[in-house]
Amino acid sequence: MSVPTADADRTAGISPEEYRHALRRHAAGVVIVTLNGRHGPVGFTATSLASLSLAPPLVSFAVAAAASSFPAMQESDSVLVHVLGDHQRELARRFATSGIDRFAEPTNWSPLATGEPMLHGTPTWLRCTVEQRIPLGDHVLVVAVVQQAHVCTTVAPLLYHDGTYHRLGTLDGEPLRRETEQPPDCVTGDAGYPCQDGGCRTGSTTALLSPSDGPTAADR
Amino acid sequence: MSVPTADADRTAGISPEEYRHALRRHAAGVVIVTLNGRHGPVGFTATSLASLSLAPPLVSFAVAAAASSFPAMQESDSVLVHVLGDHQRELARRFATSGIDRFAEPTNWSPLATGEPMLHGTPTWLRCTVEQRIPLGDHVLVVAVVQQAHVCTTVAPLLYHDGTYHRLGTLDGEPLRRETEQPPDCVTGDAGYPCQDGGCRTGSTTALLSPSDGPTAADR
Repeated sequence: MSVPTADADRTAGISPEEYRHALRRHAAGVVIVTLNGRHGPVGFTATSLASLSLAPPLVSFAVAAAASSFPAMQESDSVLVHVLGDHQRELARRFATSGIDRFAEPTNWSPLATGEPMLHGTPTWLRCTVEQRIPLGDHVLVVAVVQQAHVCTTVAPLLYHDGTYHRLGTLDGEPLRRETEQPPDCVTGDAGYPCQDGGCRTGSTTALLSPSDGPTAADR
Repeated sequence: MSVPTADADRTAGISPEEYRHALRRHAAGVVIVTLNGRHGPVGFTATSLASLSLAPPLVSFAVAAAASSFPAMQESDSVLVHVLGDHQRELARRFATSGIDRFAEPTNWSPLATGEPMLHGTPTWLRCTVEQRIPLGDHVLVVAVVQQAHVCTTVAPLLYHDGTYHRLGTLDGEPLRRETEQPPDCVTGDAGYPCQDGGCRTGSTTALLSPSDGPTAADR
């Protein structure tokens, strides 16, 4: 019956429908997590990446126990977290689609020296070793130590909100980017792959203003 | 000395400076978590809210062990997670500022019947009971069951990226909002407080297009 049993519901929390409806209002950056699985490369789109701890440098993300990537994620001790740019919407869709070979053409990728599949054209990625896997409801929370970071600051992030991909917009008085005279701030890391297929965007670098009173990456 | 000791660094992960630089590239929705503390209302701005599990309905967020709100957060079994709208940048700043009374004027708030401080004008909020506190590095991850949700779909979320607050922007072909003929989809919940100080925005409702292949709120 559709009549809710109020007391039981309150104990167990809101219904799946209410939960989906409410959490759709939360906006999140989009990442793709890849790993070198026993049967080949594995990867999935995620919107739950969180900055957890500065020292040690920890991040977390969740994977559904029912996900196709779950068995490989349970086995792998090393993952590559790709923080997608707003030019990578189609890649995000591909890695959220079931029943396809996500690494087949047109996906451009190659393994890092350490084995993890690196998706070309990704502005920022974090190579991480898995520290803990914590079962929480129908998902497992993966806590990982960041071992290596590739950072390109000239590409804006891809966002997901209410079932739709987005890019950043500006608030009055909050510049999205500020032109500087400094050289592009792009650390290519050991692998040396470019952020964009044609290399890092050239020209003047973009840096962002930092209000002194904003939250840090890790919450306080 | 500034010469890195490569092997030790690899074991412990990247440096705090590298971590901050890399994680600034990740974009996140902004929330304020409040609770009814032993010595009065407590609240802090956070960017680590993640959708964790559909059944049971779990969310997580992190709080620094060094944060002023930490002792109260360790004691409280109930929190109110405010998913901020893009009109609430100043409120986000206030709840990320140390050494002030964050609940003093001009903050508008009142307690819910269950005691948690509710910040007026917040489009979406989740009343949650704390399920687990997991120490992870210099933070504690709080895992909570969503017991009640207030949802207003007519206000866009506030974002944080690279030290700056942002609003959503659109990608080509991805509408930010779609006008509909339906009544405003605003569930005021038991408390009945309006989303905006003047009430929910009136006029035609905005609903968002949902691509069938996007990630769900909880990752897969």
